[in-house]
Amino acid sequence: MVVSEEHVLVKVAGVFVANTGEAPEETGPVVFLESEAKRILPIYIGVSEAFSIQTAMDNTPYPRPLTHDLFISVLENNGFRIEKIIIDDISEGVFFSRLIISKNGNPSEFDARPSDCIALSVRTSAPVYVSSKVMEQASVEKNDYTVE
Amino acid sequence: MVVSEEHVLVKVAGVFVANTGEAPEETGPVVFLESEAKRILPIYIGVSEAFSIQTAMDNTPYPRPLTHDLFISVLENNGFRIEKIIIDDISEGVFFSRLIISKNGNPSEFDARPSDCIALSVRTSAPVYVSSKVMEQASVEKNDYTVE
Repeated sequence: MVVSEEHVLVKVAGVFVANTGEAPEETGPVVFLESEAKRILPIYIGVSEAFSIQTAMDNTPYPRPLTHDLFISVLENNGFRIEKIIIDDISEGVFFSRLIISKNGNPSEFDARPSDCIALSVRTSAPVYVSSKVMEQASVEKNDYTVE
Repeated sequence: MVVSEEHVLVKVAGVFVANTGEAPEETGPVVFLESEAKRILPIYIGVSEAFSIQTAMDNTPYPRPLTHDLFISVLENNGFRIEKIIIDDISEGVFFSRLIISKNGNPSEFDARPSDCIALSVRTSAPVYVSSKVMEQASVEKNDYTVE
């Protein structure tokens, strides 16, 4: 669903392990964001953020609160909710995003890494938007992406 | 400094790599908490939490906000401060701690992993306390601990 000309709603399709370099053994986690138009935005993320996203998606709670679980507890206990995530820039392969939270209808916005934003969104079902500009620059056709 | 009979103030002495198993190659990060009585409480933590603690201790900001940086930004921007950290239980080698934050003098408390608490405390200079019971069970004499 295109919510504006500038932003596209995406869903978190999953966390995978992908090749990150020339050598076959150079691998790292990647999260796939998928638009309704079946385009995939792959974002390379850290191992612990990948674990945090996967744990929340699997709905299998870790015995102790992960950082993002604690983060959500503190926010929700104090009446805040996560309004949305916007991934709206990319520079030299690094994605930039914003976390928008609100309390009593008053939003505030924070510069954040997409991996943290996604880990928070999958715990709260907050919508994730990607700017059309970033989708044009960095997304691929779903069918063109091979998972080995 | 002993602030009460039950709790001891500690400082974060540093993050190191320690042996975690039988084999020499089994290593993992450990954070050392040191009391005024020169006792060390070693707590094994995750790699990304170790990186987060070390980055903050070195005062060398990462180009993008780490999870704990974002956490602190959200708290401080909304008028919260981190009052203190209390590590007060250990069960089967797992430490339990509480994060105490406050706004306008009203404290609230959250179940959290020590690694997250320590990563937040080193960014804000919030004091870290360990229960005397935990110190008795799990701390060692500083001079007895060898760093290879």
